[in-house]
Amino acid sequence: MKNSKLKTIISLLGSLLVLLGVVLLIPIIVSLIYQDDLVRIYLIPAIFSVVMGLLTRFKSREDEISPSTGMLVCALGWIVISIIGAIPFYLALDYSYIDALFETVSGFTTTGITVFSGLSQMPKSILFWRCLIQWFGGLGFLTFFLVVTFRGQSGLFQLFTAESHKINMSRPVPNIFKTIKILWGIYIGFTLIEIVILKVLGLSFFDALTHSFTTLSTGGFSNYDQSIAHFKQAGYTYYRAIEYVIILFMALGGINFLVHYKVLTGKLSELWEGIEMKYFWGIIIGVSTLIILDHYIEFPFALVEFEEVIRKTLFQVISVITTTGYATEDINSVFFPALAKQLLLILMLVGGCVGSTSGGIKLIRVVILNKLFKREIKKVYYPERAVLPVVVDENVIPDTEIFRIVALVFGWILLIVIGGGITAIFSDLEPWNAFSGIFSALGNIGPFYFSVAKMQSLSDVIKVTYIIGMLAGRLEILPIFVIFNRGAWRD
Amino acid sequence: MKNSKLKTIISLLGSLLVLLGVVLLIPIIVSLIYQDDLVRIYLIPAIFSVVMGLLTRFKSREDEISPSTGMLVCALGWIVISIIGAIPFYLALDYSYIDALFETVSGFTTTGITVFSGLSQMPKSILFWRCLIQWFGGLGFLTFFLVVTFRGQSGLFQLFTAESHKINMSRPVPNIFKTIKILWGIYIGFTLIEIVILKVLGLSFFDALTHSFTTLSTGGFSNYDQSIAHFKQAGYTYYRAIEYVIILFMALGGINFLVHYKVLTGKLSELWEGIEMKYFWGIIIGVSTLIILDHYIEFPFALVEFEEVIRKTLFQVISVITTTGYATEDINSVFFPALAKQLLLILMLVGGCVGSTSGGIKLIRVVILNKLFKREIKKVYYPERAVLPVVVDENVIPDTEIFRIVALVFGWILLIVIGGGITAIFSDLEPWNAFSGIFSALGNIGPFYFSVAKMQSLSDVIKVTYIIGMLAGRLEILPIFVIFNRGAWRD
Ligand SMILES: [K+]
Ligand SMILES: [K+]
Repeated sequence: MKNSKLKTIISLLGSLLVLLGVVLLIPIIVSLIYQDDLVRIYLIPAIFSVVMGLLTRFKSREDEISPSTGMLVCALGWIVISIIGAIPFYLALDYSYIDALFETVSGFTTTGITVFSGLSQMPKSILFWRCLIQWFGGLGFLTFFLVVTFRGQSGLFQLFTAESHKINMSRPVPNIFKTIKILWGIYIGFTLIEIVILKVLGLSFFDALTHSFTTLSTGGFSNYDQSIAHFKQAGYTYYRAIEYVIILFMALGGINFLVHYKVLTGKLSELWEGIEMKYFWGIIIGVSTLIILDHYIEFPFALVEFEEVIRKTLFQVISVITTTGYATEDINSVFFPALAKQLLLILMLVGGCVGSTSGGIKLIRVVILNKLFKREIKKVYYPERAVLPVVVDENVIPDTEIFRIVALVFGWILLIVIGGGITAIFSDLEPWNAFSGIFSALGNIGPFYFSVAKMQSLSDVIKVTYIIGMLAGRLEILPIFVIFNRGAWRD
Repeated sequence: MKNSKLKTIISLLGSLLVLLGVVLLIPIIVSLIYQDDLVRIYLIPAIFSVVMGLLTRFKSREDEISPSTGMLVCALGWIVISIIGAIPFYLALDYSYIDALFETVSGFTTTGITVFSGLSQMPKSILFWRCLIQWFGGLGFLTFFLVVTFRGQSGLFQLFTAESHKINMSRPVPNIFKTIKILWGIYIGFTLIEIVILKVLGLSFFDALTHSFTTLSTGGFSNYDQSIAHFKQAGYTYYRAIEYVIILFMALGGINFLVHYKVLTGKLSELWEGIEMKYFWGIIIGVSTLIILDHYIEFPFALVEFEEVIRKTLFQVISVITTTGYATEDINSVFFPALAKQLLLILMLVGGCVGSTSGGIKLIRVVILNKLFKREIKKVYYPERAVLPVVVDENVIPDTEIFRIVALVFGWILLIVIGGGITAIFSDLEPWNAFSGIFSALGNIGPFYFSVAKMQSLSDVIKVTYIIGMLAGRLEILPIFVIFNRGAWRD
């Protein structure tokens, strides 16, 4: 092959396919335990994936991976993985391949919009696979960015996270592979703890396992059409405790995993000292208080107990800011009056912390833009030559990072406009409602404004648009555009 | 007075009050002609304004006006003028002072949201005053920026328009007062031409005069509750021609007046050569085509004639992109299907050209952000040290300007969030609808999403919020925040 860049890309994608093949063996265990006779639907794509992977793993010169190569591998990697990961759904269920792909991308990107209904009647191994891909996607995207960066020794990581300086400086150990091991260690540890607690509180082992997968990945898939509200409706004794536990672990998923590392190694103060953590807790407390007040202004004589108002509010605020997408109360219901609905919408846009599994624009970026805004006001009355840098946690934010954040937000708006327009053309949705679907997809938020039946009935054109939107959002916009740039493919 | 800055500010405001006093004498002529017995309601504020103005015009050292002084004068100036300009409405009509102030601010900022109903029964001089303040506001804000800049010899103008470089470089004559004279000359000339044409097409002289005032200022006040649709409904023979003429003059109001100057002095190509003009025409043609197609997809068997579809579409597209706010067809009607409604919403956000009388974020800023976005994508695959400036019309846009644009857009979003929240608390509007009012106010757009009756019935808290929003939008956000910054008031 002449183009050595293309060679490197294909080779890296090959490694990924081998990895996917191994992961596809996991649901086989579940299939065997529950004897749902579905071993072949995982085995076929697993073998296909491994063979394809081994065939395309050239012995490439791996000493230099350019930023554009890294970006292309990241973007194409998730697309390829999703295309193969969708095969089990397609083989086992009575849905079109586009639906299967939609569900898979919604899984890997931890978006959590579903087009599958009647979940409780589905084979156990399928439900397991659905939640497992969310769990891998959750920390997988972050890992992938880190690995590609390290291999290239390039500034790639800076390209993906506008807050690179923060990550770099607080990188717990010099070796990137050690960092990745630590991150996965924490992730696995948290997952195991949540499984045990949920099991103790009365969930079946299977439900405890799958819901832990989708809590910490802030993915939001559930085995029940009613999401987390199921446990109350089905009469679980400790449904309150179950909800509080899920609140806690959603919050953990929405926090930077490097913060977790520092907290676990003794620096407890990291949990509230960084500016992003301050905003995280501040917004959760502030918005929850406003929503509770708004609820009582609307219903002075109390619809439900005080504890239930607090619990439902806290659950939804944290589900939304971490972009998990679980629900114990529909955010379109009267429980949340107009101001509450607005606040929840804005939280979706903001999203959780950088270095977490959550989606959205990310808190620190909004903080940086807010600081820039204040700086521009100050500039008016400061001497012309005064140097007024944008400072976050005692670090000066370089201009190049601010530009990247602006590009990301601009790309977001652009994709919402285009996606909303496509939705309007190919559906009977109202104009504003047509924006909400692509908004949920881009922010990797979840199924808040459409019913499953509505989502299922939409045209394939819209579904493909949302698939691109989910990937674009999780990849933080730029890589998706880079794919379509011929210049990026040149050697 | 110790604080010489405060002294300068008060002195400049004094000059403005004298000017306002003179302007308040104009409707007296109309009052005398129509004998509506309302001379005193203009005379009282006129005398008050002149006296107050003369008392506060200190002999200040006018050699140096700092940017912050200029901004404070701009912001406070329009507030003071509006407070006094509201007096005639308050004295003549049966509305609260807040309503009168709302209408006045909506006038001066050329927003065009009205809280007055039964317009056709109102005294002629009141209708005249209402349209006159829009006409003055239209070019008045631009003039004010220019004057304050010139007096201070400072970089103030740069602070107001992110496109300063463009204005500076294309400043037609070196003397700023000559520039202002030329701008007003063009403005007055266009207004006279429109008056004559509308009169010839069958409007009364009064209607021709007042509608010309509010077309070129892209203000959008009309003497009729049905806006421009009135002329068709009332059976005017040449209503089609009337609508086309208004389309033309709205477009002229939405174009940079320096472009007009150049075109009038022979450089006709200026009308399409600059990037902003290219986008202006491109968007008008592109969006109109999409809306017409969308209309025919929805109604293949034609609701109305083809000419009417084109005329109504073109009218609304230009009314919206220039933020005039006139209507011949309600944008919430079925005539505009979902995609059309979305496109019109996005046009409102974008707005017209810089240096025009229109509101919104302004085309050139969106163009600059779009170029920045493309630059950031390019950066990924260009060598790390490659210099990739953002270039518009062969000029490199300095980083400081990009930051100012970002701050402006951020301030916009911030004010929409706050204003939308206040609306949600103090009204029974739906959450998304609650955002639309402050959106119309900030963009100086007009009365597109509420009925007059709805607007009138809103709480005073919301009306004051919108008053601040209209001023903030017209002043381009930063000055309003500077007022509330103690640092800006220091010497
Ligand atoms: K999610
Ligand atoms: K307007």
